[in-house]
Amino acid sequence: MAIIKGTVKKKEYYIVIIGCGRLGSRIASLLSSQGHSVVVVDRDEDALQALSYEFSGFTILGEATELDTLKNAKLDKADIALVLSPDDNTNIMIALVAKEYFSTPRVIARAYDPSNLEVFSQFGIEIICPTLLAVESIKEALEIAGDES
Amino acid sequence: MAIIKGTVKKKEYYIVIIGCGRLGSRIASLLSSQGHSVVVVDRDEDALQALSYEFSGFTILGEATELDTLKNAKLDKADIALVLSPDDNTNIMIALVAKEYFSTPRVIARAYDPSNLEVFSQFGIEIICPTLLAVESIKEALEIAGDES
Repeated sequence: MAIIKGTVKKKEYYIVIIGCGRLGSRIASLLSSQGHSVVVVDRDEDALQALSYEFSGFTILGEATELDTLKNAKLDKADIALVLSPDDNTNIMIALVAKEYFSTPRVIARAYDPSNLEVFSQFGIEIICPTLLAVESIKEALEIAGDES
Repeated sequence: MAIIKGTVKKKEYYIVIIGCGRLGSRIASLLSSQGHSVVVVDRDEDALQALSYEFSGFTILGEATELDTLKNAKLDKADIALVLSPDDNTNIMIALVAKEYFSTPRVIARAYDPSNLEVFSQFGIEIICPTLLAVESIKEALEIAGDES
């Protein structure tokens, strides 16, 4: 059975996912099918309804930039927050609120624009940047040596 | 000095990049700074003008879905085509044309929607899927064992 190791030592986690796009919905189904308690927040009802049948967690329809929505998601009880909205500034804001206001132990946010990475890491937010992952992947595919600046 | 190894054996390649968004522009500057001949095609003049000063290749303003644009980019002479427009259907079409019409030896395309991966691979197109890369990256960050379905 899949477990999460690392900084948190439990076998089942309470995970709040902000943003139910392609990435959010996919990771929600994955974590939920592995027995974790998952809550997904999105302002788009259609996005939430499109979650796969594997998803057995809860959904919250609302603006994640409003504190009440995050309170409803019980972010104060979450082990992990995954902040995956399509907007970098929104993600920075929500990730900060998760970290500072709700004291979520682990906050991982998506950055679309690589030039925003510094802002995220300034605040101790873990970052997923699909553009940089894709650059790395193309470099590997082409077997290019050396680092990208 | 960085070289491309693998299926192609030259040290400097002729690489056509379709789509000058965040990924396209970044990889264009990288490859160009490594001494490869790079041509970037986009229909948005602002996107082409935003290429970094590191980029020393050529740009072509035009619709990559029109054969003339791809001919102008000398896709028939290219060692590698990187098809990185923001639309999966456009990418499938252009990648197919690169492969079948221009006989480009290596064609790598971006797929936004993981459900399109099968279509790409059916046609022997190499795929970069940022969403799946991000899922993998989050799994690694959380140190989740096991495969995603």
